[in-house]
Amino acid sequence: MGIEAHKDLLSSIGVDVERHAKMMGMGLEAYKAQFLGQPNRPKAMEYFDWFMSEIQGQRIAEINQLRAEKKPAVGTFCIFVPEEIVVGAGGACYGLCGGSNATIADAETELPRNICPLIKSAHGFKLQRTCAYTQSSDFIYGETTCEAKKKAWEILAKHHPVHVMNIPHMKREKDLKMWQEEIEEFKEHIEGVIEQPLSLEAMKEGVRKVNAKRSALQRLDKLRSSNPDIMPISGKDCLWITQVGFMDDIERYTAKINELCDELEERVKEGVSVFPKDTPRLMVLGTPFAPPNWKLHTAVENTGGCVINEESCIGHRYFKDNVDIEGVQNDDELYARLMERYSKIDCACFTPNTGRIDKIVQMYKERQADGVIYYTLSFCHTYNVESHLVTEAMAKEGIPCLVIESDYSPEDAGQIKTRVEAFLESISFKKKAQAFANK
Amino acid sequence: MGIEAHKDLLSSIGVDVERHAKMMGMGLEAYKAQFLGQPNRPKAMEYFDWFMSEIQGQRIAEINQLRAEKKPAVGTFCIFVPEEIVVGAGGACYGLCGGSNATIADAETELPRNICPLIKSAHGFKLQRTCAYTQSSDFIYGETTCEAKKKAWEILAKHHPVHVMNIPHMKREKDLKMWQEEIEEFKEHIEGVIEQPLSLEAMKEGVRKVNAKRSALQRLDKLRSSNPDIMPISGKDCLWITQVGFMDDIERYTAKINELCDELEERVKEGVSVFPKDTPRLMVLGTPFAPPNWKLHTAVENTGGCVINEESCIGHRYFKDNVDIEGVQNDDELYARLMERYSKIDCACFTPNTGRIDKIVQMYKERQADGVIYYTLSFCHTYNVESHLVTEAMAKEGIPCLVIESDYSPEDAGQIKTRVEAFLESISFKKKAQAFANK
Repeated sequence: MGIEAHKDLLSSIGVDVERHAKMMGMGLEAYKAQFLGQPNRPKAMEYFDWFMSEIQGQRIAEINQLRAEKKPAVGTFCIFVPEEIVVGAGGACYGLCGGSNATIADAETELPRNICPLIKSAHGFKLQRTCAYTQSSDFIYGETTCEAKKKAWEILAKHHPVHVMNIPHMKREKDLKMWQEEIEEFKEHIEGVIEQPLSLEAMKEGVRKVNAKRSALQRLDKLRSSNPDIMPISGKDCLWITQVGFMDDIERYTAKINELCDELEERVKEGVSVFPKDTPRLMVLGTPFAPPNWKLHTAVENTGGCVINEESCIGHRYFKDNVDIEGVQNDDELYARLMERYSKIDCACFTPNTGRIDKIVQMYKERQADGVIYYTLSFCHTYNVESHLVTEAMAKEGIPCLVIESDYSPEDAGQIKTRVEAFLESISFKKKAQAFANK
Repeated sequence: MGIEAHKDLLSSIGVDVERHAKMMGMGLEAYKAQFLGQPNRPKAMEYFDWFMSEIQGQRIAEINQLRAEKKPAVGTFCIFVPEEIVVGAGGACYGLCGGSNATIADAETELPRNICPLIKSAHGFKLQRTCAYTQSSDFIYGETTCEAKKKAWEILAKHHPVHVMNIPHMKREKDLKMWQEEIEEFKEHIEGVIEQPLSLEAMKEGVRKVNAKRSALQRLDKLRSSNPDIMPISGKDCLWITQVGFMDDIERYTAKINELCDELEERVKEGVSVFPKDTPRLMVLGTPFAPPNWKLHTAVENTGGCVINEESCIGHRYFKDNVDIEGVQNDDELYARLMERYSKIDCACFTPNTGRIDKIVQMYKERQADGVIYYTLSFCHTYNVESHLVTEAMAKEGIPCLVIESDYSPEDAGQIKTRVEAFLESISFKKKAQAFANK
């Protein structure tokens, strides 16, 4: 099928169909080159490969079918937007395109060069009309987690409806109180789209569905990383799976993750690993990877390492906490539970954010990792400045740590590969020395 | 006198005396070279020249005398810190060093390269112990107006006491309510330093003093810019005067500004201008100039133009509004009035911030300016992104506009000069063409 079958739909929502087809073709080629050749992939990956082929085809048709039924379609750039409410209203909450270099030159006609590539890429997709998700959105839900986004919304609003959620940057009691009000306002905004009240029961149902999805991702995280000798799936496949979670139909996706996990459980039992036994196991910390930004994972896994976790918004930070709705009796209690869950997110936008460091150390130990890569998108001040305190803590714990700052240009791929290679060599050497010492 | 006479004091507050003396010597040379040769300076500039020689000498002694009397000494980097309360407590509220390239390499041992030079410079001054203001501070009062600062406080706190004020990024009723609470908390913090309650009357007295200072600066702004044929003082001198206002004793400073204004009033009456009649008159918009960052003003005024206003935090944004305390009966009412005044500041950290654009256009017309330079420090996302909407508005109004992004390195001085020169030429050409058309 692919996007060919949905040309009329794409055109009707304002997509520049020709340019879009070209970009999708390139994306698909890149996917094939980077994913399909991996050895011994789980059979359940077939679904996620299929999703790639329908990413801006059938899935867009599904979203627009929802819209025709007056369900909300909400585009976001941040995991602070409470998707439980959108899902509760029967709609789709998805991440917008923002991982491609191909739209950045256009964005730079309105935005400065030296801001984060994710923001520029996303802005460029809107200017080019080459993201069918953006074009399908009733509105884009922005937030104030970073200042380049915060200010870029003002410009994006010239081209698409934008609503901004004010996320506080401290977590004192009064900040959390205000945050809860933002969640309530979001719900009212969604009611405006569906033109009817959203019941407590519907919202609870939304929470149950999103909890199920998060639980499935937690299960996958555990299967992928808990046995130091068996990595039943590649890190790159897991990254892609997580990325799909920001676009796919939530129930189908959850079922497919659980199917995959069943298969991975078998693999673990049978000792089937997609990497050799002593492959250095890395955690990646920092800023999100929006598709098709697979650069770092490709560099690591083509160079003799593997990625066992993304401590990232498109990763562990997204799925680590569920919402507890046990005993919730009214809307306010539900908002409080949502706020409680969302305020556990340890985004670098918060000050202080020391909990993140403790968490990283704990995750590292639990997963018996061999090192971490602190990854920041260029010009992301919050994660970039926070890297000082994180790497200081890594040094104290004796955790090998490599810091990589990168954008979406292909130019630094070679340099990243060289640095990753040297880092992996030093880890391998350390592992061998330890094994020798333990004899 | 100079800093020599205060060596023991400087040493006692932890200043690296030798390095400090070298840096101050260089600063003084730069000041002499850039300021003293200007033609026909007002006589009252003598005081501000003297201040430069005592900037880290006598003034530091005065601040430490206050501290000995248990008055607060508060270092800041932002005009959102309510100095009225510090002044009301008999203390000194001052801007910390942050305008020099000489400390940046040290700062980059803890901070990323690609954040704003002001933050890096300030951080480096602390690491080097070469700013006697920083060393004299009971604490540094940080705020959350920009994310690089917000995160850098966490690192600076390893080296100096830091307290952070949470400035909201929207101006809805609930944001302002929270802001008011921050002001109250600030007052309580100051009470902690002075170890006694701060009375309403004392705070009101603080407001009166700061209002008087702002009124004096408003008077200067008017004298400098309201007559298109007579510029009685250079833009560079005015910039320096404003910079001094962030360090000097408030009452002495206010008196000296008013003395200067008396002299300038005479000059205007007598038609004494420091620039030739048709000199292009520019407004500078954007980020602050911390001393010794005089690069842009030097480029403009050495190239045949003059600067008639800084729409900047070290400039008009700082002094444009007074606090109305008419009828205030209790502390809460005072906080509300302070909040009301501070929330008029149109920092680019706010979203939306359209009021800033309307104000710029109005200022431009009132002052009969000939063009604007939108100046941003490198990597200042908020002012940098906001420049798109501002320059769009300038274009709509037919206002000539040049955008300059710069840091503290001397390397782009030549390039800036060339761009400013070309800009001034185009303005001069336009003025001549208009004069011809009006004949």
